[in-house]
Amino acid sequence: MELTVYLAGQIHDNWRDEIKEKAKKESMPIDFVGPQENHARSDSIGEDILGEQPGKLYRDDAASSVNNFRTKLLLSKADAVIALFGEDYKQWNTAMDASLAIQASKPLILIRPASLIHPLKELSNQATITVETVEQALEVLAYVYE
Amino acid sequence: MELTVYLAGQIHDNWRDEIKEKAKKESMPIDFVGPQENHARSDSIGEDILGEQPGKLYRDDAASSVNNFRTKLLLSKADAVIALFGEDYKQWNTAMDASLAIQASKPLILIRPASLIHPLKELSNQATITVETVEQALEVLAYVYE
Amino acid sequence: MELTVYLAGQIHDNWRDEIKEKAKKESMPIDFVGPQENHARSDSIGEDILGEQPGKLYRDDAASSVNNFRTKLLLSKADAVIALFGEDYKQWNTAMDASLAIQASKPLILIRPASLIHPLKELSNQATITVETVEQALEVLAYVYE
Amino acid sequence: MELTVYLAGQIHDNWRDEIKEKAKKESMPIDFVGPQENHARSDSIGEDILGEQPGKLYRDDAASSVNNFRTKLLLSKADAVIALFGEDYKQWNTAMDASLAIQASKPLILIRPASLIHPLKELSNQATITVETVEQALEVLAYVYE
Amino acid sequence: MELTVYLAGQIHDNWRDEIKEKAKKESMPIDFVGPQENHARSDSIGEDILGEQPGKLYRDDAASSVNNFRTKLLLSKADAVIALFGEDYKQWNTAMDASLAIQASKPLILIRPASLIHPLKELSNQATITVETVEQALEVLAYVYE
Amino acid sequence: MELTVYLAGQIHDNWRDEIKEKAKKESMPIDFVGPQENHARSDSIGEDILGEQPGKLYRDDAASSVNNFRTKLLLSKADAVIALFGEDYKQWNTAMDASLAIQASKPLILIRPASLIHPLKELSNQATITVETVEQALEVLAYVYE
Amino acid sequence: MELTVYLAGQIHDNWRDEIKEKAKKESMPIDFVGPQENHARSDSIGEDILGEQPGKLYRDDAASSVNNFRTKLLLSKADAVIALFGEDYKQWNTAMDASLAIQASKPLILIRPASLIHPLKELSNQATITVETVEQALEVLAYVYE
Amino acid sequence: MELTVYLAGQIHDNWRDEIKEKAKKESMPIDFVGPQENHARSDSIGEDILGEQPGKLYRDDAASSVNNFRTKLLLSKADAVIALFGEDYKQWNTAMDASLAIQASKPLILIRPASLIHPLKELSNQATITVETVEQALEVLAYVYE
Repeated sequence: MELTVYLAGQIHDNWRDEIKEKAKKESMPIDFVGPQENHARSDSIGEDILGEQPGKLYRDDAASSVNNFRTKLLLSKADAVIALFGEDYKQWNTAMDASLAIQASKPLILIRPASLIHPLKELSNQATITVETVEQALEVLAYVYE
Repeated sequence: MELTVYLAGQIHDNWRDEIKEKAKKESMPIDFVGPQENHARSDSIGEDILGEQPGKLYRDDAASSVNNFRTKLLLSKADAVIALFGEDYKQWNTAMDASLAIQASKPLILIRPASLIHPLKELSNQATITVETVEQALEVLAYVYE
Repeated sequence: MELTVYLAGQIHDNWRDEIKEKAKKESMPIDFVGPQENHARSDSIGEDILGEQPGKLYRDDAASSVNNFRTKLLLSKADAVIALFGEDYKQWNTAMDASLAIQASKPLILIRPASLIHPLKELSNQATITVETVEQALEVLAYVYE
Repeated sequence: MELTVYLAGQIHDNWRDEIKEKAKKESMPIDFVGPQENHARSDSIGEDILGEQPGKLYRDDAASSVNNFRTKLLLSKADAVIALFGEDYKQWNTAMDASLAIQASKPLILIRPASLIHPLKELSNQATITVETVEQALEVLAYVYE
Repeated sequence: MELTVYLAGQIHDNWRDEIKEKAKKESMPIDFVGPQENHARSDSIGEDILGEQPGKLYRDDAASSVNNFRTKLLLSKADAVIALFGEDYKQWNTAMDASLAIQASKPLILIRPASLIHPLKELSNQATITVETVEQALEVLAYVYE
Repeated sequence: MELTVYLAGQIHDNWRDEIKEKAKKESMPIDFVGPQENHARSDSIGEDILGEQPGKLYRDDAASSVNNFRTKLLLSKADAVIALFGEDYKQWNTAMDASLAIQASKPLILIRPASLIHPLKELSNQATITVETVEQALEVLAYVYE
Repeated sequence: MELTVYLAGQIHDNWRDEIKEKAKKESMPIDFVGPQENHARSDSIGEDILGEQPGKLYRDDAASSVNNFRTKLLLSKADAVIALFGEDYKQWNTAMDASLAIQASKPLILIRPASLIHPLKELSNQATITVETVEQALEVLAYVYE
Repeated sequence: MELTVYLAGQIHDNWRDEIKEKAKKESMPIDFVGPQENHARSDSIGEDILGEQPGKLYRDDAASSVNNFRTKLLLSKADAVIALFGEDYKQWNTAMDASLAIQASKPLILIRPASLIHPLKELSNQATITVETVEQALEVLAYVYE
């Protein structure tokens, strides 16, 4: 059974590549999709397409329209969502993607370090399952194929 | 027209009272609901009801079950949602409530200071409207009654 | 049976008052709701609340956020929608409100003069019923109470 | 990832061909669908199938039944919608298709010239993103594949 | 608990009055709604409102638009539906109302004489319960209040 | 674009074969599905699987459970529905399938002879399009591929 | 805020009365609804209304149609569901009501003794919160009013 | 037509293999999916992935999170559900999966021995069809392909 899984979360390291490689190695027929991982491009995409905007607010709003178009489209195609929280950054994007998945009844794996147990407790409680590492998230996916 | 509005956001100051008083003063027939505002109670409610849990993770998970029961029930009764972000705390709870409202097609007012424009840009872009102050949020509600 | 009916359409004459008075005269227990009818206020409401914007595009976008908040809220409360098209203006707002009602499975009365039969044909074909006058729309509502 | 995109809007020039060619050139695996582009056929299709109708109203209503059958079917298959507004014509059809996409939670790209900013402001505000040219709409689609 | 129940079915005898009187006698707080029961009015309502139509097909289509507006509105307000089939007439209207209730997950009581068991078997099988008399349908409603 | 179309209606002549052949001849990539066309099998399928039932009511109910399983499954896979009414039989099955399609927002072509205009008027008014012949229904489908 | 809460579960003792009294004592404005609590009546209701059936299977099926009509109606009116499992009986009814609430996104409190932790683990994991006593369930409800 | 069918029910004998073999033998293009059939693995999967938990309750809750992730994902891909009840065990899992299918409008075949008619009566009454043997369930599936 071929699946599409959306990988929500920060774009500052290569955790998505790690998941993709491991899934490939274990021959899981999963198509992983996710946000734009080039941070600069993700921030400038609004002005890249629409031209210069009159200030930071408008530049950010334009960028987020394009990012939201991408996310909305890919989330609607996803059979499941993995949302990874790290210790840095606000990551409200990730919280939003995870919550949209919950409300849309998509199965959701939340990944977060033990240090974030308290602030993420309500979101974690609504996720289908919460784990601490990328490796564990992959084991959950692998379990579907057992 | 009587309305029910859910007030999502931090519970560390009295911003909800401010909204309620102003709405009352302007005779807007709105029933405001929201999360438990007693922080200690919100954190201990799981153990208060279920008894001691075997560690912080389980204590937090028990508390969030009760908090989520409350939020799920009140959000389902709400005609609109106001979500306030401040400069402190992770506030993933608030991001979750706002996103559940978006996905459920409930009109959403996001309140955030200018300093949070960038990290909140995708969520703000999906809100029905984003403002900077509690006062402005009330003006949006008042506009419905004009 | 008390009903709430949303009155979509232009805000340049008093057609809504006409409907309200007649419904009252015939003792129909209907709560009519609709957009802001003060045109200047409708155009300036974004800047009235958020302050000056950097140009017409942003001024219009800010105003429409507030107007859409109002419409989204009131449409969700409405049991039925009446959408009136006249011969002037683009009226894409009206087309949008009518179409949102269609997709949300709300019963929809379309009012349009004979001169607009051709450009409105696909929308008219999806409305629950199309009439030519405000008087006829009221007769449709009155029929529900017969 | 193969996608289906519905191209709503006027049928008086070849803007759809421009999009299709560019997407093909950039190897985007997108299946573009849309309304009948032969204007005369689109207007006569009701009578072509059902035979002569008793007047323009009935001729238009018959045609729009067939056109709506086509649109309803193709919109339901579409992963995203692009709606183009030009300076001529009423284009309520386009407004309807765009609004049906919004209410159905399909990601929507609105294309409109700067001259239409004001009359389209509420619809534009609800679109996922608004751009001014066909070229920009394609860049948004291309961003999904980056 | 106050309920609204839609009474679908033929309009050639006073079965609705029988139900209303019995429910009143047993003090069940139910608001019964249903189609226009004046048959001539039901057939002429299109022309009564829209004026003369060019033939029977168009006269019938106009009438059914108004009838469907009424049904769509009242069905959406109903907590349950009772659909009565008798031995005469085509009654496709009744089958339609019953099926709309099934698809909308509204509890449905089907009333039909034993002589119609075979032709109604698939519809009956999807109803929440099938009975043979108006009296029995009322007993089902009364059971909700026990 | 490959489509699945459900053919609802009587099973006493070969109208489905006529549609399938013509669609094939015109190279339309449509997978037509529909009810069991062997009438005796359709009536006995409950007892064929579950064994003898204690009377006609129970025999019919058992058969309709199996038929409804088939219809529910195939309707859920269908992109569009064609429902044909003829002059004989009660055909409440057909009315049910057509209405389920309407409520599920599936595009619906109704085929009925002119003699049935009056009794089918409300259902016809809710269909996406109503035609009189199988040939015309096919023209509507063909129009989607133009 | 007035709420309606459905009380699913066994009907062999007076646990519902206990909940109702306590809620009343604490002045919680909750309307509690639930299944028929007279066990004999619940089993005979099908034959009570429809007359004698040809065997136990048919008697049970008739009774369950009436019971399901009641449950479907009351569950649709409920803002939240409490499902109580005890140590005796199969209680598949209770599991069904709890699961229908989960799938319909209604907040759900599961009550079960510690002895049933293992067999109820998947259902418990999907409930909004699981407690062990009626008293604890009431505390959860009371928390909504704090 | 290729279908996906979810097989809910106990995992203590090889009834799923029986179904798969027969379907293969009759060349039915069905992809059967279902829960983890290795009982020990199903019970330990939470700790296998997340590490040791502080007691049986937490061990069970962890396992059920992973099992629910699998079920939620596979049920969402399924076109139909078969739920088998046997005479042993509580089987609330099976009741939950069957009920989730009912609420999600998925066609459902219930298999249960005659001895369970009474306790399963309400669930059976809501299933699309109830049979007594695996063989009969397969005949229902085969009927879809006739």
